[in-house]
Amino acid sequence: MNLLLIDPAELTDRGTVSLSDVRARHLRTVLHVQPGQELRVGLVDGPYGVGRVEAVDEAMVSLRCAFEAHAPSRPRVDVLLALPRPKVMRRLWAQLAALGVGQIILTNAGRVERNYFDTHMLEPREYGPLLIEGLQQARDTRVPAVSIHRQFRKLIEDDLDALCADAHRLVADPSAASSIGDTVRSAAPVRCLLAVGPEGGWNTFERDLLAAHGFHAVGMGARTLRSDTACVALVTLVHEAMKVGAVGSEVS
Amino acid sequence: MNLLLIDPAELTDRGTVSLSDVRARHLRTVLHVQPGQELRVGLVDGPYGVGRVEAVDEAMVSLRCAFEAHAPSRPRVDVLLALPRPKVMRRLWAQLAALGVGQIILTNAGRVERNYFDTHMLEPREYGPLLIEGLQQARDTRVPAVSIHRQFRKLIEDDLDALCADAHRLVADPSAASSIGDTVRSAAPVRCLLAVGPEGGWNTFERDLLAAHGFHAVGMGARTLRSDTACVALVTLVHEAMKVGAVGSEVS
Repeated sequence: MNLLLIDPAELTDRGTVSLSDVRARHLRTVLHVQPGQELRVGLVDGPYGVGRVEAVDEAMVSLRCAFEAHAPSRPRVDVLLALPRPKVMRRLWAQLAALGVGQIILTNAGRVERNYFDTHMLEPREYGPLLIEGLQQARDTRVPAVSIHRQFRKLIEDDLDALCADAHRLVADPSAASSIGDTVRSAAPVRCLLAVGPEGGWNTFERDLLAAHGFHAVGMGARTLRSDTACVALVTLVHEAMKVGAVGSEVS
Repeated sequence: MNLLLIDPAELTDRGTVSLSDVRARHLRTVLHVQPGQELRVGLVDGPYGVGRVEAVDEAMVSLRCAFEAHAPSRPRVDVLLALPRPKVMRRLWAQLAALGVGQIILTNAGRVERNYFDTHMLEPREYGPLLIEGLQQARDTRVPAVSIHRQFRKLIEDDLDALCADAHRLVADPSAASSIGDTVRSAAPVRCLLAVGPEGGWNTFERDLLAAHGFHAVGMGARTLRSDTACVALVTLVHEAMKVGAVGSEVS
């Protein structure tokens, strides 16, 4: 835990918070905090701040917090992900939050097995703590927005414009010749939406529908990666390309 | 499994192989192979080829194989990794093989707990199958060379030149201002060796020793990632930068 995240509902009017859960245990047993010590804190979906430890005992750690005026901006990359196997999705929540994504849009697809949607890992009370874990690791406060769509066509045709109005759309495609770097740098977009297909890939209908709705196919070289490895690698490359793009536009 | 890997010792003089392990089960129950069918195969640390299914029964799948003349070249990125927790290392073997690394050099460091070295996951019979799993996923035949070093100083001072003579040396450092992309592109190296520290980072002695032995500190932005996520992201960025570098030197 590199940043202690606090939910706004946990704060009293006086800006104090009393923690008694896994965070309190971490503060006591790993960080060995003492009264008077100051910690970097963040408000969930809000600003960073400083928390001064007021009291520590077996059951509880109390802090008085002061926050900055503004929240950090939302990560500029969103992902549209054909729902992977529950075991893989379980591993991805914290990793995506740590890498920094503004939205996680999960969808059905021809090659997604129906029973993948039955997992309890798609309930906010299950994935919420994993997203917070990733944010506390990466020192971010902005929780990715999550939406789950059982109808791929409806998502792409009807819902996506409202979800991601301003994003440059990319779809990872092993057969594509264009690289993420070149594609993103030439568009220099404010936001990117990256679509990642199921193991086995999008089918022809899905590929055509994505192309018809503005998704640019981008390749990633000859190696086929497992979907969790691929997600981490692809999100990393989009972030990197957007950084380079931003520098380029400052220079020119 | 996107490529069936066969060990040279499994081949008869006539170029046939009879599989009865997990690969046979995968061929039968997932790929539903039939006699006469041709599959893409590879020889462990050797060339690609084609295997023609000769017989399939409950216990065994037999193939006759023909291989190309030359093995693919070794991936151009090596990693030097402060040994992570056993659970994390377990997840990394297949992912590193799939991303493509020539060598995995594991080392002790001040912030590596001694008992991490006691795990059976550091024995070839444990990690070997995980490396093969990653190669079969990514369609590569070249098995990363693995070496394990309990003395960091001896590794860096005495052994590293022989292990990685020609590699451009990088060390991931959250506080570094230079990016992987810029550093690799300006050097346009034939190979890169990327050092990734333990959770909590290298200590001052280790950092200084790496710098004194030619390691360039490269940053990765403000986010602190868990070591498995960081490894995947960093190796991806080094590969990407070396690709761009190669294109650049062809153009100039």
